[in-house]
Amino acid sequence: MADKKQEFVTHITPRNEDFSQWYTDVITQTGLCDYAPVRGCMILRPYGYAIWERIQAEMDARFKEVGTENVYFPMLIPESLLLKEAEHVEGFAPEVAWVTQGGTEKLQERLAVRPTSETIFCTMFAKWLQTWRDLPMKYNQWCSVMRWEKATRPFLRTSEFLWQEGHTIHATEEEAQEETLTMLDVYRQVAEDVMALPVYVGRKSDKEKFAGARATYSMEAMMQDGKALQAGTSHNFGTNFSEAFNIQFQNKDGRLEYAYETSWGTSTRLIGAIIMTHGDERGLRLPPRIAPIQAVILPIAAHKPGVNEACQKLEQELKAAGFRVKLDDRDTVSAGFKFNDWELKGVPVRLEVGPRDLENGVVTVFRRDTCEKSTMPLENLAGSLQELLDDIQKGLYEQAKSFRDTHTQIVHNMDELGQAVETGFAKAMWCGERACEDEIKEKFNASSRNMPFDQEGETFGDTCVCCGRKAKHVMYFAKAY
Amino acid sequence: MADKKQEFVTHITPRNEDFSQWYTDVITQTGLCDYAPVRGCMILRPYGYAIWERIQAEMDARFKEVGTENVYFPMLIPESLLLKEAEHVEGFAPEVAWVTQGGTEKLQERLAVRPTSETIFCTMFAKWLQTWRDLPMKYNQWCSVMRWEKATRPFLRTSEFLWQEGHTIHATEEEAQEETLTMLDVYRQVAEDVMALPVYVGRKSDKEKFAGARATYSMEAMMQDGKALQAGTSHNFGTNFSEAFNIQFQNKDGRLEYAYETSWGTSTRLIGAIIMTHGDERGLRLPPRIAPIQAVILPIAAHKPGVNEACQKLEQELKAAGFRVKLDDRDTVSAGFKFNDWELKGVPVRLEVGPRDLENGVVTVFRRDTCEKSTMPLENLAGSLQELLDDIQKGLYEQAKSFRDTHTQIVHNMDELGQAVETGFAKAMWCGERACEDEIKEKFNASSRNMPFDQEGETFGDTCVCCGRKAKHVMYFAKAY
Repeated sequence: MADKKQEFVTHITPRNEDFSQWYTDVITQTGLCDYAPVRGCMILRPYGYAIWERIQAEMDARFKEVGTENVYFPMLIPESLLLKEAEHVEGFAPEVAWVTQGGTEKLQERLAVRPTSETIFCTMFAKWLQTWRDLPMKYNQWCSVMRWEKATRPFLRTSEFLWQEGHTIHATEEEAQEETLTMLDVYRQVAEDVMALPVYVGRKSDKEKFAGARATYSMEAMMQDGKALQAGTSHNFGTNFSEAFNIQFQNKDGRLEYAYETSWGTSTRLIGAIIMTHGDERGLRLPPRIAPIQAVILPIAAHKPGVNEACQKLEQELKAAGFRVKLDDRDTVSAGFKFNDWELKGVPVRLEVGPRDLENGVVTVFRRDTCEKSTMPLENLAGSLQELLDDIQKGLYEQAKSFRDTHTQIVHNMDELGQAVETGFAKAMWCGERACEDEIKEKFNASSRNMPFDQEGETFGDTCVCCGRKAKHVMYFAKAY
Repeated sequence: MADKKQEFVTHITPRNEDFSQWYTDVITQTGLCDYAPVRGCMILRPYGYAIWERIQAEMDARFKEVGTENVYFPMLIPESLLLKEAEHVEGFAPEVAWVTQGGTEKLQERLAVRPTSETIFCTMFAKWLQTWRDLPMKYNQWCSVMRWEKATRPFLRTSEFLWQEGHTIHATEEEAQEETLTMLDVYRQVAEDVMALPVYVGRKSDKEKFAGARATYSMEAMMQDGKALQAGTSHNFGTNFSEAFNIQFQNKDGRLEYAYETSWGTSTRLIGAIIMTHGDERGLRLPPRIAPIQAVILPIAAHKPGVNEACQKLEQELKAAGFRVKLDDRDTVSAGFKFNDWELKGVPVRLEVGPRDLENGVVTVFRRDTCEKSTMPLENLAGSLQELLDDIQKGLYEQAKSFRDTHTQIVHNMDELGQAVETGFAKAMWCGERACEDEIKEKFNASSRNMPFDQEGETFGDTCVCCGRKAKHVMYFAKAY
């Protein structure tokens, strides 16, 4: 019975039939993750974690390039610290998991499993910061956070999830704003250049900003069901937290000043974004720059002389050339099973090597993005493979961008807005009032996403899409994950 | 006042005066870590975390080479899972931190903040494992764990600490034993070859083994105060957990069998081991292969023409050659302050570049291990630097090994044992009975560390050091962290 199972290609629900079920089918059948025996939590299995490692490597190198240093702060935060900044505690308290017992001892004060770490970073910044010479401090940590969510979905919303959180303090408001936007741009680069996710970047409304921030910026990606996924945020706190935590420094004139602060974060949500942006009826399609395995080598008629040796040689050559390749020489499953398995897992390129290929001095090449087959000369395969991977990377980005652009509509009234958010994003003029956001939310279950930076070049009217009063901003609205 | 502070070289307590205070002085003054506003927890500051990142990189590459895959499991474990294996729960329950409240909801079942993850891995192994084809599964995760400790010391024993935990299942007892010893050897390699920590590897006594293991193996390092530090452990569980969690597979003959399991772990303790093995009166001395900064470049008389340019060029050249170098071009502190600062931080090599050096086509070189100064030609500096770093790496290892060897004494009776553990390790014949371990603990506050693998070649008597009855094993005893 177990033998049978391995040969059976499991069914994936078509996307247009039930996108949500398609998503669930893909993540479970690819072995990216599994449901944990703890409410609302998931387990990142090897293939899913390998994608996260790739995201970490790409992000982390860029963080360090702009002068960020990694640190590690405790996962438990005393309740009294969480209470110090009023907006912040109001935003997070309802979803905190509390430690109340340590060993045999009932704790005097409850400890929050960190939902985010601003308050504990601020406590230490206040201790460490003395003079202007100590600034800026630009720290980041890779860790997990816990938010006691009611409704959860793997990668998109789970009680515990992996993320990175950057926390920085600066001598001036300008510098803090520059940091906020620099990190947003780092996120955009990784999203667009590495994960092939086209994103809209811009500022969130006051309603949607982070609890305690003066301004929140986000990047918003569009999933294939037309819904928005907030894929990264960067916050400028001004001196909100500095005042609550007394983070002061002696400036060059010897006077005490409050430091200006930022924070910024991305999470395993990005894996959800990759799946829902690029996946198709056969499963995942991973962009080559984020794929844990860029090419899988399959021996065909492996018992024939020379086939296995040629495959091993090819694997060594491509690894030496810096590619992430895997030779699948399992003899416990059929070639057909392997084809399906690696297509499901979204490996960008499959290289088939059989006796006839070897006779002709070629490999048979299957590209996962278009599902096209061709052949390539074995000679200088590394060069041709790099070109092919670049082409796939570019193609996936352009396909996603084309989808996003054709599913973004400029709208002038509520009817148009309501229609637009059924299939994608609505780009509208907005008065800036929360009442209009609330009305749009109530009528269409759509929320404001963000406001493009170049508002001048983007305007297309002067009345609010909802109330008809004078418009102040261009705003994207969408249903959202 | 803050100006003054930066120029003041802070005092480090001499090691022979108070080793414990020396340790505290070093870790706080180097900025490796700080005490957190949460009981028993610490914060890894940038320099300390950078060392951890180096350890992670060296370990992780070796884990992957032997076929381990990384995963991530939830930090919360339902109490009912912890209770499934009797010895295990007895070992860990007293030091568990419990989550009892999630958001506004009081939980029906308490959730443990993981003290270790055997129970939740086992739950999933039981779900994932079907047939012999699925074996082995070799997983590892990098995460933090929580143990509600009464007495804590940074890096050595804290309520929360960073570690990696490997969990593997296998088809046969032999394969599980091989895995257990392979991973112990990976640890030994990283300890000796990368961190320059000579270690004794061997099997723990039943008293000292992991709660739930059939056999625990460890590597034991000797600190400069002669105390032992258990620097890594590898456990063979046999089918203990498999039976408790019903982890079964269909073997090649179609019959159900229990899987054989191992786990293995190392933690930020290793940073404590590096400090206490190599440090001296001036502070840290980091082995080049683990040092986040291998060489610091200091401009001397930076205002003189050509000095800054030469330093920048040197930095670029050495970075391009793959060295981890830092140019310290701060103009807010004196050269003398910088000398002390980088010596305190244990950077293996300081390269001073001044006008006279440039005239002579050399750099002035300070090596931190011996505190000797010399010069090196600027031409082909990368080559000479590599040789120097290799020499420092070797020298630190040999110095530590010589210290360890001269502080390890073969003992034949309790008096000798009592004297030996005042300054180092006692190597004794032992009957294998817990009563003798207990007596040694009570009399000398020393515990059994581990038994060398090659017992045949190591024996030097046939009576137990404590009870005088027939000896079965060679055992190291020591006071321990």
